[in-house]
Amino acid sequence: MAFSPLVDQLLDALRVLPGVGPKTAQRMAMHLLERDRDGGRQLARVLMQAAEDVGYCQRCRTLTEQPLCELCESPRREDRLLCIVESPGDMLAIEEAGGFRGRYFVLHGHLSPLDGIGPDDLGLDALDAVMEQAGVDEVILATNPTVEGEATAHYLAQQLKPRGVTLSRLAYGVPMGGELEYVDGGTLSRAFMGRQPFND
Amino acid sequence: MAFSPLVDQLLDALRVLPGVGPKTAQRMAMHLLERDRDGGRQLARVLMQAAEDVGYCQRCRTLTEQPLCELCESPRREDRLLCIVESPGDMLAIEEAGGFRGRYFVLHGHLSPLDGIGPDDLGLDALDAVMEQAGVDEVILATNPTVEGEATAHYLAQQLKPRGVTLSRLAYGVPMGGELEYVDGGTLSRAFMGRQPFND
Repeated sequence: MAFSPLVDQLLDALRVLPGVGPKTAQRMAMHLLERDRDGGRQLARVLMQAAEDVGYCQRCRTLTEQPLCELCESPRREDRLLCIVESPGDMLAIEEAGGFRGRYFVLHGHLSPLDGIGPDDLGLDALDAVMEQAGVDEVILATNPTVEGEATAHYLAQQLKPRGVTLSRLAYGVPMGGELEYVDGGTLSRAFMGRQPFND
Repeated sequence: MAFSPLVDQLLDALRVLPGVGPKTAQRMAMHLLERDRDGGRQLARVLMQAAEDVGYCQRCRTLTEQPLCELCESPRREDRLLCIVESPGDMLAIEEAGGFRGRYFVLHGHLSPLDGIGPDDLGLDALDAVMEQAGVDEVILATNPTVEGEATAHYLAQQLKPRGVTLSRLAYGVPMGGELEYVDGGTLSRAFMGRQPFND
């Protein structure tokens, strides 16, 4: 025996969510059906609308339901600075950290030949269009500090070098607030190589 | 800055799910929008349909979109045995364990005066109807082994006693496969009180 067919379908459907296995799906379904049907209806409505309407910003390719995202619409950002990131979440993290006043470009992934993700899948034609139009003179390659992120940064650097723009990458080093004892060796040796003059 | 209004709405809507905070909601939304829109649409459809159509079985009150659940429809279950549980999940757990061939009644909760949950909220009029019609002669009070579950079992026992049915409660004792060292004191002392003759 199991639950009724429709409840079983709901259990299956909930498992598309990352990190949700059979037990969690059951807990979620019971919560929605027993205690929060209005919340469930609202989730269903918003999820359907988002799946239909959310697309990519025509300029920076972040997720938005408008042709251009709020940040690309803003006249107060500097066109000459462009930060290239792998995901909309990375873009949000940088915005929340504060300090960067330029614009963004979202790749939606990284180069990964084994998964069949090549340059064409990262919207590089859209990137070319931004580079042509915006008068960018510095590009910050803020792909993730992973093997794939590094490879993607190197590829982008090769593509962008002929344009004569300044290229940079985020600094590697020890994270703030951590203890050296627990920092991995690779990070530590990069932090040594990148050591900075100490100004008292 | 945040995501676009519709994506932010999706993050909020996902937080109705139990155990989902801001970070998990973001991970779920990004997964659905970036990698599995079809799964997201399917979840939205099924969730809406379930929130609208799933109700209570007219007889046992478990969750079902039909007037009577599959188990109440089955002619192969014994009408004379009735197992009263707190939730549809408890009913499923007992079915999966196997061995019980009677019917069920689902309270959808337990007595909890502080939360304003009294006898009327547990469908006891429906329980009376079942007791009248079905020729029940044994009721297993399988509410949870918690303070509220115990109190609910005692209340139900008082209500059902005048009917002259046999009343029972699940055995307390040490769980199978556990080590005594890690069993809590309350459970251990109940297991001692309920010790059984050993037949070699």
